[in-house]
Order: sequence, then C-alpha cells, then structure tokens
Amino acid sequence: MAKVLIIIGPEFEDLEVLYPLYRLKEAGLEVDVAAPTRGAVNGKHGYTVEANLALSQVRPEEYLALVIPGGRGPERIRATSREEAVKIISHFVKSGKPIAAICHGPQLLISANAVRGRKLTSYPGIADDIIAAGGEWINEPVVVDGNIVTSRIPEDIPHHFREFLKLLK
Amino acid sequence: MAKVLIIIGPEFEDLEVLYPLYRLKEAGLEVDVAAPTRGAVNGKHGYTVEANLALSQVRPEEYLALVIPGGRGPERIRATSREEAVKIISHFVKSGKPIAAICHGPQLLISANAVRGRKLTSYPGIADDIIAAGGEWINEPVVVDGNIVTSRIPEDIPHHFREFLKLLK
Repeated sequence: MAKVLIIIGPEFEDLEVLYPLYRLKEAGLEVDVAAPTRGAVNGKHGYTVEANLALSQVRPEEYLALVIPGGRGPERIRATSREEAVKIISHFVKSGKPIAAICHGPQLLISANAVRGRKLTSYPGIADDIIAAGGEWINEPVVVDGNIVTSRIPEDIPHHFREFLKLLK
Repeated sequence: MAKVLIIIGPEFEDLEVLYPLYRLKEAGLEVDVAAPTRGAVNGKHGYTVEANLALSQVRPEEYLALVIPGGRGPERIRATSREEAVKIISHFVKSGKPIAAICHGPQLLISANAVRGRKLTSYPGIADDIIAAGGEWINEPVVVDGNIVTSRIPEDIPHHFREFLKLLK
C-alpha cells in the first residue's frame, strides 16, 4: 500500500497534523508519523498524536509523498533534529516526489535549502524568511510549484489538500 | 452549488466540526454552519468557528445533507434550542437525505426520535441512551443504516467521511 510521511514536532498546529492524517487515511493511504522522538507528541491545542517513528528511523525512499505541518513543530525540530529532517526533505526535493507544507512548515524547506528560485507561500509572519532564502512569496491560499504545494493558515486546508491530492494520483 | 449544513453548539469537539467543514469545502461543496446564536462559537480545544446562521434561521429544504458533530455541543443545543434542532433534523430524517452524526452527535437523533429501529453507533458513554431510545448500538468505526451514518470518536473520522461522502454522490 502507498505510504505518506508526516513529520511533526512538539506544539504542532493540531488541525494541520490531524486533517492530513485523517484525510490520507480516508483516501485509503497508509500514513507514518515521525517526530524527534517516537511516541506521543502534543499539539498547541491539546490533541495528542502518536509518532510511530523517530525522524532518525525514517527511510524516505519508502514514501510516496511528504507532509510538513506548521505550528511551533518546525522550530522544535530544528532545535533537536535538524540534520535528520534535512536529510528526509532533501530526498523528496531531489526525487521530485510531492511535498505539502503549510503555515510554519516551510521553515523546514528553508533549512533544507529547497526554497531558492521557487514560488511558494507560508504563514505571513515568515514571508521575509522565505524571501531572504531566495524564494518568491505569494499571498494565495495555495501555491503549487512543481512538486511543492504550500499554504498559509489552517483555513487554507481545503485548497491545500485539493491541490496536494492531485499530485498523488 | 450544493450546500451541506453543520449544526453546532458551544464546546463542540473541534475536529468533528473542522474536519467536515474543510473536507466538504475541499470537495467543492458550500457549507453553512448553524448554532443556537449566530457568530463565533468556541470548541473544547479552543478553536473558534463562525456560525453564519442561527438554528432558527435554517431552511432545511435548501440542503443536500446534514452533519451533527459531537463534544458538548449537542447537550448545549438541547438546553437552548431543542425545538429548532428537532425541526431541522426531522426534515432530513423524513426526506431520507444523508445525515452524519459522530460521538455525542447522536444525542440529537434521540431528541428527534430518529433512533428507534435503527442500527447506529456513538460515543460509547451514550450507548445505553441509544438502546433506551430503541436503537441497536453497534461498536464499529462507522455504521450506515439507510441515510444515517454514525461513528464513535474523532479517530473514526476517516471511516465516517468515506461512507458519508458516498451518500453525497
């Protein structure tokens, strides 16, 4: 069965993790969740999600696509597991497999040097970081540039997933 | 454009409102949200959802289908707007249009006397109430009986929506 990977860190934005988790399962896909440490991870709004893998255990070649949610998770991942996350993301960037990143998720695309020369969006508060990293920031509910699908905020999720799922077909 | 109605009350289960809201929009449907009072309504986990209609303003014949989320919303609706909710639900029951109810959502099906002789599921803590109201309670992630699709908990959402969306086609 085709598998999708979601990478999360503590204080993730709950909907940006749980919508993809449930939506991809609804579509009949298998989903693995990886975090700095295996086990329960807490979101900003108090939901708990079980990470069945540590980021260091991920074999990115097993996955069809990657989801990078927002909240404070991406900065928390940078603090403890930057190298592991960059290695995973780089596989998807190089292979051209679909990547969905929303809100603060694109911070990890900056870390992986995957922004330069690309059109993308993000939480507006990090637009300057996207631009400083060489990206073109666009204020739209969803921006698709090749294999990378980005959105700004949880309310953009309907647009985000409509475009992301097209790339999984 | 086809419209779906979601009925909510204060202290709703956030995911059980926001997944349907975003998922139905993702599918290209229009969604109205009705609550005892128009305006912002807060979920158990701190998300805010805007109700664009009061329950008393709803014209149920305008909608293709009905979604009844769980949390404490259904009891709160019973406390302030029982008659309005029963009137809305009865339209969907009598017309055979699809109804999705999850968690404590089926409490409002009991109020509308829509449970008798039906197979359904719910949050396990209200199974006895379903049985007392004449229903057959089944411990499965999703139960479909004619036009009524029920589930137990947020983790059942992938099953719940896979079945509910089949009825909207």
